[in-house]
Amino acid sequence: MARQATIRIETRGQGLYEFTRKAAAFVAEGGEEIGLLTVFLRHTSCSLLIQENADPDVRGDLDRFFRRLVPPADDPSMRWIVHTTEGPDDMPAHIKSALTAVSIPIPVTGGRLALGTWQGLYLFEHRDAPHRREIVLHLST
Amino acid sequence: MARQATIRIETRGQGLYEFTRKAAAFVAEGGEEIGLLTVFLRHTSCSLLIQENADPDVRGDLDRFFRRLVPPADDPSMRWIVHTTEGPDDMPAHIKSALTAVSIPIPVTGGRLALGTWQGLYLFEHRDAPHRREIVLHLST
Amino acid sequence: MARQATIRIETRGQGLYEFTRKAAAFVAEGGEEIGLLTVFLRHTSCSLLIQENADPDVRGDLDRFFRRLVPPADDPSMRWIVHTTEGPDDMPAHIKSALTAVSIPIPVTGGRLALGTWQGLYLFEHRDAPHRREIVLHLST
Repeated sequence: MARQATIRIETRGQGLYEFTRKAAAFVAEGGEEIGLLTVFLRHTSCSLLIQENADPDVRGDLDRFFRRLVPPADDPSMRWIVHTTEGPDDMPAHIKSALTAVSIPIPVTGGRLALGTWQGLYLFEHRDAPHRREIVLHLST
Repeated sequence: MARQATIRIETRGQGLYEFTRKAAAFVAEGGEEIGLLTVFLRHTSCSLLIQENADPDVRGDLDRFFRRLVPPADDPSMRWIVHTTEGPDDMPAHIKSALTAVSIPIPVTGGRLALGTWQGLYLFEHRDAPHRREIVLHLST
Repeated sequence: MARQATIRIETRGQGLYEFTRKAAAFVAEGGEEIGLLTVFLRHTSCSLLIQENADPDVRGDLDRFFRRLVPPADDPSMRWIVHTTEGPDDMPAHIKSALTAVSIPIPVTGGRLALGTWQGLYLFEHRDAPHRREIVLHLST
């Protein structure tokens, strides 16, 4: 048995957007005691991340690390990039997506997501412009 | 309920090899309306990637980025590598595998993979020599 | 149908800790012929990795690569890090976790994990101090 839903997140530039509550609400709806929630992102220029939900500086540092590891295509160190037609932030976004994840399965135990105390679910937007992102939630029991 | 199959991909050096159609054909065979397809790679020197299926330059740039981030073991910057017995491309292949993914679950909705418009499924080969790679497909409903 | 268990691993500093046998034992207990085992880590400063289980130098090189890519926060190249309250190894640990994985689904075929010949399951500890880590095992059939 399985059920699904789609959630949408409006992003406003690069950074992490939490959606733990939305995922938890979807799990709670059905009342299943045990199961597996898969969160799946339908895009190739953003990603999904489970990260610390306490100190917001962690999210800031994560964002800074990935900007330094994969600078925009107009940075002198990135002159080798060929795919630049969609702007200097596009190809780096695909690379950051490849370095992280687009699909994460999370066990459900006792009717709740089995996340650790400090774990939150985030959409990691890698593009500069606002985007409407879709995440498919799939719960199997 | 679940069913499985194994697909094999013959690679000819580093780069991305698409197998979206093979995965979609496996999903279509059973006619399940809703489910979860897991693609699992049985190797440690290549990886799986969901990436843009439109402009081939995206795949070229991805390949170039990973070659620059993790050059072959005979590159002066990689002299710290100890595991060199299988050639200069072997340990970098394990590292690139660790930086990407070997298993990706994808929801099935309305009898089809819930991939976004621009998402394709790729085997990312990190070795120079030709290899025969095995991917296990697992569909649960 | 699904069953779950939690395993605990005591780590003693950065490096890879194998738990393939514990996961295989959990799979064997139930006697299911076909299924999907998901291994899920309840932490944000370590990660899960499927890697070569033959030459231990591979694990050493992996550890060295990630230390070089993401040095401790007191390294001159990492002065941009803001989140330093939990020590110089903490924020790099979150970054390494984002670059790897915290959840991996593995098909079960013929009653056994469908791992390739050279694939082992590892907890990748990124913190210096000893930690008690929890992994949730979820088997669905």
